[in-house]
Amino acid sequence: MPDVFAAFDAHVRAREREYVDELSALVRLPTVSAQGSAIAETAAAVLGRAQRAGFVATAERVSGGPPTIIGEQGSGDRTLLIYDHYDVQPPDPLEEWRTPPFEPTIRDGSLFGRGTSDNKGNLMARLQAVEAYKATVGPLPLRLRILFEGEEEIGSEHLAELVRVHADRLRADGCIWEAGYKDAAGRPTVSLGLKGICYVDLEVRGTALDAHSSVGGIVPNAAWRLVWALASLKDESGTIIVDGLMDHVRVPSAADLALLRALPFDEAGWKRIHGIDGFVGGATGLELKRKYFLEPTCTICGLRSGYQGQGSKTVLPAVASAKVDFRLVPDLTPELVRSLLRAHLDSRGFTDVAITPHHGERPSRWPSDTDVAKAAVAANRATYGTEPVVYPLMAGSGPMAQVCDQLGIPAVGFGSGNAGSANHAPNENIVIADYIDHIRAFGRFLHAFAGRPM
Amino acid sequence: MPDVFAAFDAHVRAREREYVDELSALVRLPTVSAQGSAIAETAAAVLGRAQRAGFVATAERVSGGPPTIIGEQGSGDRTLLIYDHYDVQPPDPLEEWRTPPFEPTIRDGSLFGRGTSDNKGNLMARLQAVEAYKATVGPLPLRLRILFEGEEEIGSEHLAELVRVHADRLRADGCIWEAGYKDAAGRPTVSLGLKGICYVDLEVRGTALDAHSSVGGIVPNAAWRLVWALASLKDESGTIIVDGLMDHVRVPSAADLALLRALPFDEAGWKRIHGIDGFVGGATGLELKRKYFLEPTCTICGLRSGYQGQGSKTVLPAVASAKVDFRLVPDLTPELVRSLLRAHLDSRGFTDVAITPHHGERPSRWPSDTDVAKAAVAANRATYGTEPVVYPLMAGSGPMAQVCDQLGIPAVGFGSGNAGSANHAPNENIVIADYIDHIRAFGRFLHAFAGRPM
Repeated sequence: MPDVFAAFDAHVRAREREYVDELSALVRLPTVSAQGSAIAETAAAVLGRAQRAGFVATAERVSGGPPTIIGEQGSGDRTLLIYDHYDVQPPDPLEEWRTPPFEPTIRDGSLFGRGTSDNKGNLMARLQAVEAYKATVGPLPLRLRILFEGEEEIGSEHLAELVRVHADRLRADGCIWEAGYKDAAGRPTVSLGLKGICYVDLEVRGTALDAHSSVGGIVPNAAWRLVWALASLKDESGTIIVDGLMDHVRVPSAADLALLRALPFDEAGWKRIHGIDGFVGGATGLELKRKYFLEPTCTICGLRSGYQGQGSKTVLPAVASAKVDFRLVPDLTPELVRSLLRAHLDSRGFTDVAITPHHGERPSRWPSDTDVAKAAVAANRATYGTEPVVYPLMAGSGPMAQVCDQLGIPAVGFGSGNAGSANHAPNENIVIADYIDHIRAFGRFLHAFAGRPM
Repeated sequence: MPDVFAAFDAHVRAREREYVDELSALVRLPTVSAQGSAIAETAAAVLGRAQRAGFVATAERVSGGPPTIIGEQGSGDRTLLIYDHYDVQPPDPLEEWRTPPFEPTIRDGSLFGRGTSDNKGNLMARLQAVEAYKATVGPLPLRLRILFEGEEEIGSEHLAELVRVHADRLRADGCIWEAGYKDAAGRPTVSLGLKGICYVDLEVRGTALDAHSSVGGIVPNAAWRLVWALASLKDESGTIIVDGLMDHVRVPSAADLALLRALPFDEAGWKRIHGIDGFVGGATGLELKRKYFLEPTCTICGLRSGYQGQGSKTVLPAVASAKVDFRLVPDLTPELVRSLLRAHLDSRGFTDVAITPHHGERPSRWPSDTDVAKAAVAANRATYGTEPVVYPLMAGSGPMAQVCDQLGIPAVGFGSGNAGSANHAPNENIVIADYIDHIRAFGRFLHAFAGRPM
């Protein structure tokens, strides 16, 4: 590590209180995109903060969308795009929060509040890191661009169009994605992409009204139709058997398998946390990691039909529905999955099973040898003095394809979260030391991506 | 028809108002066994009414059970047992009743109120018929016995023991069962038994808590386990494939098939009522009737798991459950079905699917050539001037096995209901003319079963 980062680190550590106060002020805004609350106010605050950090920035929007902050500063051979979002998940269930979600509170060295981890924390940390870099290391050695959106938590519906319209202000040689977490063992992690998602309702409408169950031998039953249709999608070994779907899943490369082999995966810990004796299909070791990181999923998230109360009600239900979540790896897309699913059901006579699409996002996955990935690994190594864990994909989803695949920008993710950050859940939090470390790592990352010696 | 029934009919018709008022007083009592309301009061009223009709009767109970009225009058070579129940279903949903369930109301020639059809109407009509017979035809030509219970609507839990304890007061040569209905075309019907029922909850508990759906590729999912277990019970043609279950279903005899061939079955009307294009497995004609009357059913009455609200929630549910109703034909019993089901699930590795029994009753089916069946057909023919429709079984269930199979008493059913009587539903009703006709038919039935010329 060049000596210059000693000054950078000292500068950052001296400002811990100020940095956390600044983040707390942002967390205090209840920017719940699902409820449309505090969107304009937060966008204005974020725009102002980015400008103070030196960005020439504006708030842009496309028809019907929220303000999106786009900006730029610095110059150099390389351009880095920073993607974050300023909106947060709803805070429900409120009664499970130890302190109110929009009253950020420090407890045991952690900052609790909605958005501390996902994703106001990283957004603010990165702006603070840019300022600290300029104050201690010198002028930015590359061109920095920012893209801060306000509807990530509700599906980023307008983002693809906005990126298309403003492509010239967003192109870059690499993109740092919003999120990243220390794993359960406290190791820093770097991720090379996100799974996509295709979430659908499957609904069968059978009889005109609920009927008496005594006619069950001859009158078609919506619940049975749904069960048979679902059972045709995935077999008891956990293999997805939707016609043709697995043909679109890339065969893992030697590099993929090397990444997986190097990945720690605490099988005993997983079993303990979920209270299970084993994994689907008895998978373990490399096979288990391959399934988790490099294969799609097909998950029943909900079932609903007929009588659900105590005891017995002798009813033949008129309607049955399931919520099904497919997580996607390249080269699956939500459109492709819905189309394969429709053809699969139709070919088996399940034309009575209606598909209603909900959330859909494409997967986005980048190689481990891009410059931006190498810079992220180097910066984390320099910050933590240990080799970071590299995930080929995060199992979660986000609008990475709309930005990075659309513009051809390799992406990488790391951040200030931890394994217990409780994103989307009550008592969301970050460890303050992790927050400071992310600022330290981010300064080094700028340096490394610009090609400066680490 | 002997002349003497002219006087009987005139006597009955002259008392229509009085008869309906007397029934209305009984319906006014809210005898909801599921809520334990008005049980003692109704039992006392029924006992008193039976005694006024000439029965030497008492209220009996076994430990924990409600009062059951047992009584006797008359003498002759033959003994007839009359089975009815004085309890009723809960009236919910109250808001769908045009007039309050326990304020019996006459509208368009029908009497509306909870219990008018199921089963206070038949209970009262039969006592009134006995009185009218004695007043106009002469002394009873047979021994009559009554068994009026108070927990039919909640599963007749204590009935088998009560019948065992009081067997000597209940033995008979034939039994007239509680219910019977004119069909949708207005034809009188006679039935020779009831299907049994085995109603169970199937529940899978998977993970300790709901998990994030991104782990769906490797963490076992209770909803998937339930779907696969259910799909192993019945195939898409509607055939029950629980190991060994269909081996216990009797092959229809030539007499059974003759009964079915003679049965009208309005396929177009069924399709219209249920809003369906066709029946399960494409069945029609004799096959359809065989399935409906002589085969068991396996019906999903309810499904519950995970998220059921609007939109998407990315959850892997910890628990999934189904309510499943098997309707039973001889020689299936609830105990046998539960045992076959457990073995079937275990042999496929579904040891994680728990079975919780609810309602269970055995089927009870009697030949068409018993004296009591022949008397019922003759009495209906004489009353209505048309051949009644004979059902080999009713698709519904009841405690017939506890009474008739236990004591070896052939049973038959006919009554005052109609195809729109709405038993167990809002706006339960009988047509007053049907009620008077049931009294007329019942007087003739006593006569015929005693061997007197019709």
